[in-house]
Amino acid sequence: MNSSICVLAGGVGAARFLQGLVNVTEQKNITVISNVGDDVDLYGLRVCPDIDIVIYTLAGLINSKVGWGLLDDSFTVLKALKNFGYDDWFNLGDQDLATSIHRTRLLREGVPLHEVTRQLARSFSLDLNILPVTNTQMATRIETEEGALPFQDYMVRLRGAPRVTGVHFSKIEDALPAPGVLEAIAEASIIVIAPSNPFLSIDPILSISGVRDALEASKAPRVAISPIVEGSAIKGPAARMLESLGHEVSAVGVARIYADLVDWFFLDELDRDLEKSIKSLGLNTHVTNTIMSSDSKKRSLASEVLQVAGL
Amino acid sequence: MNSSICVLAGGVGAARFLQGLVNVTEQKNITVISNVGDDVDLYGLRVCPDIDIVIYTLAGLINSKVGWGLLDDSFTVLKALKNFGYDDWFNLGDQDLATSIHRTRLLREGVPLHEVTRQLARSFSLDLNILPVTNTQMATRIETEEGALPFQDYMVRLRGAPRVTGVHFSKIEDALPAPGVLEAIAEASIIVIAPSNPFLSIDPILSISGVRDALEASKAPRVAISPIVEGSAIKGPAARMLESLGHEVSAVGVARIYADLVDWFFLDELDRDLEKSIKSLGLNTHVTNTIMSSDSKKRSLASEVLQVAGL
Repeated sequence: MNSSICVLAGGVGAARFLQGLVNVTEQKNITVISNVGDDVDLYGLRVCPDIDIVIYTLAGLINSKVGWGLLDDSFTVLKALKNFGYDDWFNLGDQDLATSIHRTRLLREGVPLHEVTRQLARSFSLDLNILPVTNTQMATRIETEEGALPFQDYMVRLRGAPRVTGVHFSKIEDALPAPGVLEAIAEASIIVIAPSNPFLSIDPILSISGVRDALEASKAPRVAISPIVEGSAIKGPAARMLESLGHEVSAVGVARIYADLVDWFFLDELDRDLEKSIKSLGLNTHVTNTIMSSDSKKRSLASEVLQVAGL
Repeated sequence: MNSSICVLAGGVGAARFLQGLVNVTEQKNITVISNVGDDVDLYGLRVCPDIDIVIYTLAGLINSKVGWGLLDDSFTVLKALKNFGYDDWFNLGDQDLATSIHRTRLLREGVPLHEVTRQLARSFSLDLNILPVTNTQMATRIETEEGALPFQDYMVRLRGAPRVTGVHFSKIEDALPAPGVLEAIAEASIIVIAPSNPFLSIDPILSISGVRDALEASKAPRVAISPIVEGSAIKGPAARMLESLGHEVSAVGVARIYADLVDWFFLDELDRDLEKSIKSLGLNTHVTNTIMSSDSKKRSLASEVLQVAGL
């Protein structure tokens, strides 16, 4: 099979989907277009949580209990940094920090993020093409009823608790797609929007100049997988955000957001009763297990997604 | 006692002398002018070994078995960095790395090194004034019979083994003394050249524009403590370097190097037979225990040095 599968990806949900995908197709067939809106400079080091979650997960090294960071990592540096007055609510482990130290060194030397990311993936023995959607450092700001917050303050420090009234991406006007991003979309045999947060993970990708257009122009099947099952997010604040941002809190709410962008919508069998509403948006539907609670369920989901494109 | 004691300092030997000094006078009376010729950028992080050895030693946190690094430190980050192709011969521990991460962040934000160092000393609850001799990043290059080497390659990777034929300091022509350095020398009640390597620790300090002149212009007693006892260095390659650079391998050889700069030369009682030769250089001498093998010996040496200035 010589195909090209393009996956728009956030963090944990996307990484789980990709775990299935690499078991049903060769890694070299896959291009991941990764959100960088949650990137953050900590202690002067560039941390790219979504990219790293994907890399660590596919390398089999993720701390799956929490969904981020490396298995059995220690926190010695973080503890020592506290002595200098730093916050320690962003739990960056020692081995995880090594990744950010290496990334920061390369960036400072002028290596662009997409090339840094390529090298990182190779260091973890991965063959798939992980591309940051842009090499420009952008920042997601969350408008909440308690005021505007930098993304990680909202997400990690406050654990996604404040009610969200808006999401903004700073520096996004001038941000160009990273080399390879538009090409990967244009040349894809299938494009998949991973089961990630539509507002925090997918929208920052779609907001980079040219990305939405490329997606709309593609003749390949375009599939979105619902991150919402039975009105709840598998992980994170997606459901609460649907509500506070005025959407229906269900797979239908998500399907509406993507209706103009995709041809297929994958929803969970627990939401089978919503299929009709989603079809009425003009979308093809596929009802299956989307929760990916086991390796075999991950593999099945990936395999069923590829079948849409006859792959 | 309201005095100002100015100490020109390298790493381990200077730190041991300062341990004695802080036991016989208040820290606020002491200004340390620290060598930065051995500073190195590792993994994109600025490491200042001599400054850190002094800080860790005085904070009671030094790994005294090896003379650098923090007690009971771990090496998790270093091990993870190896995965990205980095050498690991420079054994930077996890807690030690936190210091360099913090330093690097502040430097990148434009905070000058002397201010960064002041903040670091405060973070370790120290009250003495530790000043890098310059805020300019300089680099010591060691000419050896095996070719020219960056300082840490010579010192750490090759453990000071290659025969040294010359020492050069790059970028030193434009380097200005850090704010406070010339003032500390000019206003000192006593100036001490610590028992550090004359070529690798003290010469880079004296080579910064204005420092040697300030030392020569001082009316205060100026004391050098021999780093050589019975023809050997207490630590490091000083003895071998005296030989290969054409000096007598003894306290006399060191005294000759400093003869025009100091009034007093402190030599070890094991070298009592050399006192006459040193006096013949026009120097006052003081024979005592300089090996500092115990806290009380460190205290005695510091106390005897201060007595030279009637302090």
